[in-house]
Amino acid sequence: MSPEEFRKQGHQLIDMIADYRQGVGALPVMAQVEPGYLKAALPASAPLQGEPFAQILADVDQLIKPGLSHWQHPDFFGYFPSNGCLSSVLGDFLSTGLGVLGLSWQSSPALSELEETTVDWLRQMVGLSDQWSGVIQDTASTSTLVALISARERSSDYALAKGGLQGQGKPLMIYTSAQAHSSVDKAALLAGFGKDNIRYIETDENFAMRPQALAVAIEQDLANGLQPCAIVATTGTTATTAIDPLQPVGEIAREHGLWLHVDSAMAGSAMILPECRWMWDGIEQADSIVVNAHKWLGVAFDCSLYFVRDPQHLIRVMSTNPSYLQSAVDSKVKNLRDWGIPLGRRFRALKLWFMLRSEGIESLQQRLRRDLDNARWLADQVRGSDEWELLAPVQLQTLCICHRREGLAGDALDAHTRRWADRLNASGVAYVTPATLNGRWMVRVSVGALPTEREHVVELWRNLREVVQ
Amino acid sequence: MSPEEFRKQGHQLIDMIADYRQGVGALPVMAQVEPGYLKAALPASAPLQGEPFAQILADVDQLIKPGLSHWQHPDFFGYFPSNGCLSSVLGDFLSTGLGVLGLSWQSSPALSELEETTVDWLRQMVGLSDQWSGVIQDTASTSTLVALISARERSSDYALAKGGLQGQGKPLMIYTSAQAHSSVDKAALLAGFGKDNIRYIETDENFAMRPQALAVAIEQDLANGLQPCAIVATTGTTATTAIDPLQPVGEIAREHGLWLHVDSAMAGSAMILPECRWMWDGIEQADSIVVNAHKWLGVAFDCSLYFVRDPQHLIRVMSTNPSYLQSAVDSKVKNLRDWGIPLGRRFRALKLWFMLRSEGIESLQQRLRRDLDNARWLADQVRGSDEWELLAPVQLQTLCICHRREGLAGDALDAHTRRWADRLNASGVAYVTPATLNGRWMVRVSVGALPTEREHVVELWRNLREVVQ
Repeated sequence: MSPEEFRKQGHQLIDMIADYRQGVGALPVMAQVEPGYLKAALPASAPLQGEPFAQILADVDQLIKPGLSHWQHPDFFGYFPSNGCLSSVLGDFLSTGLGVLGLSWQSSPALSELEETTVDWLRQMVGLSDQWSGVIQDTASTSTLVALISARERSSDYALAKGGLQGQGKPLMIYTSAQAHSSVDKAALLAGFGKDNIRYIETDENFAMRPQALAVAIEQDLANGLQPCAIVATTGTTATTAIDPLQPVGEIAREHGLWLHVDSAMAGSAMILPECRWMWDGIEQADSIVVNAHKWLGVAFDCSLYFVRDPQHLIRVMSTNPSYLQSAVDSKVKNLRDWGIPLGRRFRALKLWFMLRSEGIESLQQRLRRDLDNARWLADQVRGSDEWELLAPVQLQTLCICHRREGLAGDALDAHTRRWADRLNASGVAYVTPATLNGRWMVRVSVGALPTEREHVVELWRNLREVVQ
Repeated sequence: MSPEEFRKQGHQLIDMIADYRQGVGALPVMAQVEPGYLKAALPASAPLQGEPFAQILADVDQLIKPGLSHWQHPDFFGYFPSNGCLSSVLGDFLSTGLGVLGLSWQSSPALSELEETTVDWLRQMVGLSDQWSGVIQDTASTSTLVALISARERSSDYALAKGGLQGQGKPLMIYTSAQAHSSVDKAALLAGFGKDNIRYIETDENFAMRPQALAVAIEQDLANGLQPCAIVATTGTTATTAIDPLQPVGEIAREHGLWLHVDSAMAGSAMILPECRWMWDGIEQADSIVVNAHKWLGVAFDCSLYFVRDPQHLIRVMSTNPSYLQSAVDSKVKNLRDWGIPLGRRFRALKLWFMLRSEGIESLQQRLRRDLDNARWLADQVRGSDEWELLAPVQLQTLCICHRREGLAGDALDAHTRRWADRLNASGVAYVTPATLNGRWMVRVSVGALPTEREHVVELWRNLREVVQ
């Protein structure tokens, strides 16, 4: 496609996207399609000759859009708010349009330096000291994997340069809470620790890690000849946005020389609000932190910020330095390939830069406060109702709710919960996420999609009461 | 930013990108900036209030563009051709604009199904049998890491569910060639194998792995009580695009029950040309393959296709199934989160779909043949000159060249090579990549940026001869 054709089609596409964002509220939130619908509708092979662009855009309308669950819909209360801010979308467009790659500083200096600068802006916004250096990863899954590999190498005195984890004497142990995200488990398994060497620490009545239980587990493992390696604590768990207490957990980590990784993928965004900073009390004791700017903060996916206290350690674990990537300025610059797994690197900082500049810190704070208010309003309605129950404290913008019906308990109540949640989702008027808590089904309502205003939450409350009838 | 403001600014941005692509040929290819130039020019913190979008775009012009090395420049002969096709760029715009995420099939069905379909289109285009299933990863670094973790788990009978690599008896061994990409080493280290357990197999005069040497290394390790685990072979190495012989290597892998991963990150694109398929003779014996569609094929970064023969094994190694991601249709669909490391997933298939449909297979073939012709033309000039030398066979679009000067050898020749390469890059008229081969410096010329026509290669040849004067 020539630049002239791109210009022509690009203008059409901008209008298509603007129309979509303006009109998305009128569509059913969850896709109303059956498995296999799209595969059946598409040709079995790629075309030999190019097709007119208009045909492709028509297929987007007819085939793709009906198969979307609309994350940017005002009635989207599923999973987590994310990924939508349109100033950030434009920054991402510029990144893709420029088509440069950051293999090294030299391969596009602006790409590396803008990443360094904007990540540091965000560091200040979330109230971290200047002892932290950051980099953009794709997702929290990857950031946590990088963290656990870093922990593994610190505990094993850089075994990767020798026999690897295969030469390890005492097994290295990982500690996290039973409420931690599945990616913590996955990272530990992929990094080679093994399921037997993960300890799931008991949580309290608010689903936060019990430091006392953590201390006991570590002591027990030490007594059994095992080698404690890392703790993963969470600020804002996935199920209930529970807040693990970082101050005592950090003290335990320090006492035993363990790596402390803090998963703030979701709640990290809230740290731009001074009134939420108590959630991070003790954060400076951590070794690594992940904050997904593509979640609530609204940056276009993917933009997972990974902060470390000791970048030299990270570089020692991750660096490669083949001749074809060396340049004369290497000693004077950061080569971000040594800060994570992939070598190739998009110009992801542009979307962060565009958003921070175009919106400004205060309007981002305002939006997050709007969402907190809306969540509190809904929590008040639930609390004021005889039929509904809140199953966890509402500390951020997520509610865990259950509808009680006389005579229903246990499996029967579970079946009721799943039935009404599925019915609500299938209706298309709202999208929520059923999940389990203490082995029982509940429904997560995650407030904070960009276009979600109070009226949409009011409407949700009406729809919830209707769907259980 | 409101959809209306997005519409207005989006149109401006489209023009900015179209203008950039049309005018990039007039800019110096390599950025002419000093380390720290951008950090010094930007404010120390994010702004409290939003700024006018026009100001941001003005800063793109004044601060960002001068700091780019232009990968889409017709005189870009560095690293590898990539990432530029404008139809694919539009597909990526749509992905970011829609702002949906694929955590599960249900979270946006079209996202999963289009990925399945387009990856299968590409499977057919590169001539793989229908025994292969594929998925999009970000980069070959990640794909190779996934491959080596998969190999580790097959060899250890799913140790991740037990003691991990820490419970491993005989050390698991990895085999690759000394010419393999640095990401192979990195993947083996991150997966916990340890540097001591990587064997670098000798290469022949064309820099391809010697199967005989591979067989000997495996036998030796077996005799020493080690456990061979995986072989990584390369189709198109980074330095010289050497082709490891997959037929004999595959037979050795099969004989010993080893995982065979084939790194075709670069040359995989060439498999859409029947005349290049000999390079993949024996490919069906592999267990996993990576083909970076964002390299020579031209899809916007990132689009690394990872193919496996046994998707059930991959899923068993990678899957997580927390309650908040389950849905009623799970048994009938692919949940792509179980095919790689990250949970979150962009709608990356759109950029592949847009490009394949808009360009068609034949025009992609034509473009790759243009580049092969241009590389051969340049190779002929080098061969016909007394002063210049080709250091490796030109099997694809990459040339490894050296300029000889009477009386210069060893370190002095190295210094001469680096000097003229740096001078050429600093001049801005072309961008090439100095690298080492057999411990000596040479210059890689990688032909195939999208706008590179014969005239640009002719001009390069003139510039090369001039710069060494």
